Amino acid sequence: MVTSHAAKARQVLLASAALSLILGTGFALAQEQETATDPAQDHTSQPQDVYTPELDSLATESVPAPGAPEGVEALTQAEYDEANKIYFERCAGCHGVLRNGATGKALTPDLTRELGYDYLHSFITYGSPAGMPNWGTSGDLTDEQIQIMAKYLLLDPASPPEFGMAAMRETWHVHVAPEDRPTEKMNDWDLENLFSVTLRDAGQIALIDGGSYEIKSVIDTGYAVHISRMSASGRYLMVIGRDAKVDMIDLWMEEPAVVATIKVGSEARSIETSKFEGWEDKYAIAGSYWPPQYVIMDGNTLEPLKIVSTRGMVYDDQEYHPEPRVAAILASHYRPEFIVNIKETGKIQLVDYTDLKNLKITEIETERFLHDGGLDSTHRYFITAANARNKLVVIDTKEGKLASITDTGGLTPHPGRGANIIHPTHGPVWATSHLGDDSVALIGTDPEGHADKAWQIVESFPALGGGSLFVKTHPESNHLYVDATLNPDAEISGSVAVFNVSEMVEGEDPEFTTLNLVELAGIEGGQARAVQGEFNKDGNEVWFSLWNASDQESAIVVIDDKTLEVKKVIKDERLITPTGKFNVHNTMGDVY
Amino acid sequence: MVTSHAAKARQVLLASAALSLILGTGFALAQEQETATDPAQDHTSQPQDVYTPELDSLATESVPAPGAPEGVEALTQAEYDEANKIYFERCAGCHGVLRNGATGKALTPDLTRELGYDYLHSFITYGSPAGMPNWGTSGDLTDEQIQIMAKYLLLDPASPPEFGMAAMRETWHVHVAPEDRPTEKMNDWDLENLFSVTLRDAGQIALIDGGSYEIKSVIDTGYAVHISRMSASGRYLMVIGRDAKVDMIDLWMEEPAVVATIKVGSEARSIETSKFEGWEDKYAIAGSYWPPQYVIMDGNTLEPLKIVSTRGMVYDDQEYHPEPRVAAILASHYRPEFIVNIKETGKIQLVDYTDLKNLKITEIETERFLHDGGLDSTHRYFITAANARNKLVVIDTKEGKLASITDTGGLTPHPGRGANIIHPTHGPVWATSHLGDDSVALIGTDPEGHADKAWQIVESFPALGGGSLFVKTHPESNHLYVDATLNPDAEISGSVAVFNVSEMVEGEDPEFTTLNLVELAGIEGGQARAVQGEFNKDGNEVWFSLWNASDQESAIVVIDDKTLEVKKVIKDERLITPTGKFNVHNTMGDVY
Repeated sequence: MVTSHAAKARQVLLASAALSLILGTGFALAQEQETATDPAQDHTSQPQDVYTPELDSLATESVPAPGAPEGVEALTQAEYDEANKIYFERCAGCHGVLRNGATGKALTPDLTRELGYDYLHSFITYGSPAGMPNWGTSGDLTDEQIQIMAKYLLLDPASPPEFGMAAMRETWHVHVAPEDRPTEKMNDWDLENLFSVTLRDAGQIALIDGGSYEIKSVIDTGYAVHISRMSASGRYLMVIGRDAKVDMIDLWMEEPAVVATIKVGSEARSIETSKFEGWEDKYAIAGSYWPPQYVIMDGNTLEPLKIVSTRGMVYDDQEYHPEPRVAAILASHYRPEFIVNIKETGKIQLVDYTDLKNLKITEIETERFLHDGGLDSTHRYFITAANARNKLVVIDTKEGKLASITDTGGLTPHPGRGANIIHPTHGPVWATSHLGDDSVALIGTDPEGHADKAWQIVESFPALGGGSLFVKTHPESNHLYVDATLNPDAEISGSVAVFNVSEMVEGEDPEFTTLNLVELAGIEGGQARAVQGEFNKDGNEVWFSLWNASDQESAIVVIDDKTLEVKKVIKDERLITPTGKFNVHNTMGDVY
Repeated sequence: MVTSHAAKARQVLLASAALSLILGTGFALAQEQETATDPAQDHTSQPQDVYTPELDSLATESVPAPGAPEGVEALTQAEYDEANKIYFERCAGCHGVLRNGATGKALTPDLTRELGYDYLHSFITYGSPAGMPNWGTSGDLTDEQIQIMAKYLLLDPASPPEFGMAAMRETWHVHVAPEDRPTEKMNDWDLENLFSVTLRDAGQIALIDGGSYEIKSVIDTGYAVHISRMSASGRYLMVIGRDAKVDMIDLWMEEPAVVATIKVGSEARSIETSKFEGWEDKYAIAGSYWPPQYVIMDGNTLEPLKIVSTRGMVYDDQEYHPEPRVAAILASHYRPEFIVNIKETGKIQLVDYTDLKNLKITEIETERFLHDGGLDSTHRYFITAANARNKLVVIDTKEGKLASITDTGGLTPHPGRGANIIHPTHGPVWATSHLGDDSVALIGTDPEGHADKAWQIVESFPALGGGSLFVKTHPESNHLYVDATLNPDAEISGSVAVFNVSEMVEGEDPEFTTLNLVELAGIEGGQARAVQGEFNKDGNEVWFSLWNASDQESAIVVIDDKTLEVKKVIKDERLITPTGKFNVHNTMGDVY
């Protein structure tokens, strides 16, 4: 069983290379790139994704000695320690804890030694249009630090460090104490219709007013921001970067700003806040890829309160897995619980947050490679992708049990939060698109009104093409939007498919309207990719990011949901690599 | 945080040496020798005990290459692999997964290289009176195997292997299938008054009739048997050895015999069965020291069903601990739950066994170095020692919460299951003695009738001396028995103190009767140690083991609880190193 981990890692890296060929290289959106494959599964050419290989020597007491192979310059222990610290604080979030690459390129010694010291030094200093920050010219790192980083990258990767309570508390800063914050909203912003937009390679978010399309503020955050989430009250905006930095922004301040920050690990993806009645704004939770754990924090200060390790047995073969990463986390509306997806072990934990000292967790056996998901329209059921297994897992959050596991019929389902629509004959269904093919699958979500269809895939039909990241709708909308962000064809990746929900017919592939958003927005340089539709509060406009390289023009295009016409193109030199957009009202209430 | 583990290990090994001086060397009873100290605590000369040091390279993918230092003969990879397998299957249970010693001697290379190949070869072949089995002359190992084992022990210790479901299933054998077992009791044994007696160094248990004192049967089991436990119905006797081998004996058979076996790890201590109404005999659970995990098994076949890793954060500093060992496990009478003590992280898990696929665990933060404990007389409260912290932890098993943590006032409390007595003024209390001093502490256990005394240490008074392992009483008895098994003075270690409960006076040290059991039993050779009183079913006789070296005479002495006179001395050449005794009725119903 132990050897199989190494074998898996090798296989997946090969599969990852295959994916690059299929889906094009260079870009990938937050949370979208890491799915894992299972060597026990088939070995066909099914698209697979980057998998962080097993870590051989977890919990070691020291980093490896800085011995250098022939031809590679040695570092002193002090230099090595500094480089190691910088790597895990600044680089691992994008390049991976074992330097196997994620949003950033792989930095394994076979590659770095090929590139050589001078190239690395220059690249770190000046950055690249593909998203590498200019650490030298920005002044973030000194030239001496860049020299040791370039040498460090020629050495074998170090073991990633643990990140327990002491390390977290060191990174925890309350910039504005709760008692120094306003007691009521001090600005005239329409907070419920505000959008928090990830500026991915800038390490920032933009706050954009949903009515005027005005960029109200650009705020520095962690790198490669993954998602924004709202506190249940709508006051606090929580942002997490791949570098595991969490920023908490108080929207009530005259000029909304970061009031608390913390780093929860070396690499992370997910953040959520408590939403059950009586527990609003009480807690936040963040999940890490490395170390494999999550932390429950005070909802007003981000003070880390309770760390829970996810290391344990894989659900099916019951062999120990040393690094089960935390994927999506959602707050239950039916119980005072967080719903935590644990990727490699295929377990979903329901974490009762009412008593952190006597912590109650229900751990549900589901399927490996849990990724993202969302709630059905009643908020009772959590539907999530086990992506490399091509399955949807359904949890009944009221009963605290597995409801179903269903094959989607497509390759690598990638729902984001999914989309809840009412099909003319199937009734309430939830949609997901796929990373690995062009299909959209609808799963029945109405066990009371449509019992025979509940948790069945009732329809599967094609959209624009493979490489889709997100579907989107809104309770007020009659449309289902499907992007194809990672499709290698620029025509496709710049477009979205729009389905008319009320015209869908059982058993027939529905027609769709193709909107070439890049063309409509008049973007010419690079390969801007249309990604992640997000509705405004009222559900009559849908926003898409046109995500380009950081030295090319990007934009956000706003579509009138009734007419499908362009209502506004938001262009601004500050809009560097916009990706995810999070409308405060919709994010707060899980409206999708 | 990481360095402190190594520092701790070193400190504790020193402390362990100190303990040997205080308590005498050579012998120790099951579960009694491993307590751990905490470097953050005081560094006084308080007795400490053997602690398995941190494992630096857990979850490694391979054992270290069999490279040998100068002067040590190399092994081929095949020989090394075989030796490694033999070591972790046969030796690690006593000598520790890192060869740091436990019930067996330490086998670290500094020591083994001093002894040399010839000594090791001979020792493995012929065994020793102190308990080392004669692996060669018994025919268990071939001479070729002994040769490679002797060489293997000169090398650095290997990383201990994981032991997941595949490994467990390989060791799982149902010798008599449930359908081939009798449907009713087929023998005329008085099962409820049967005693299962650990024959520690023989790798056996003796079944002794409580009425006639006849040895009904001697059954081969794992090595260094730690405890026996009964299924709730009283039919199945479960025995676990330190080598993590579990034997399940069907007492209904004409000739009770082992009907199923399994190995649950490299080193283990605890086993228990489900006792909640409606779940009797349904499940068994075994906890391991290595790997750090427990497994829930089918109660009729020992089929392993669910493995749960205990790796996680220490309760107080919330740093990751790679090897939190599983100490005592008890079945709750108030809920369908197992109560699992996790030693190094200081957490008690309440494991709900009603739905293994949606496993619900309440994890209670308590105190580090949880060891053994028992229930109060109502069975509602679980009282357990955090031994190296000199504390008692009380869990309310009805509410599923921590009730209290109290300092005992003594050094290294070591209660076994403890003893429930009714003190004339304090009412219902529960007693523990101490490994590190001569004190007996009484804790109030009656929050309704004596609320002001609940979970307070109401009395602390001296018994015979330090090195006590167990206290014992019975609801029908007016006596509290306290042994001093590990006391270096043979006069003391061969005796027990007997307190008259109804004559205890608040605030006064009670007088006690000393019974020199070794003298009374007429044992002359060696240093027989009186250990672990156990009552018969009716509560009118108490049995003590007189535990001698394996080549010396041992015995069991039966005392009339009313008169304190010797009623019977059981001597038999098969009674080799008798230690723990488990009366079926008392074990089944948690009567103590």
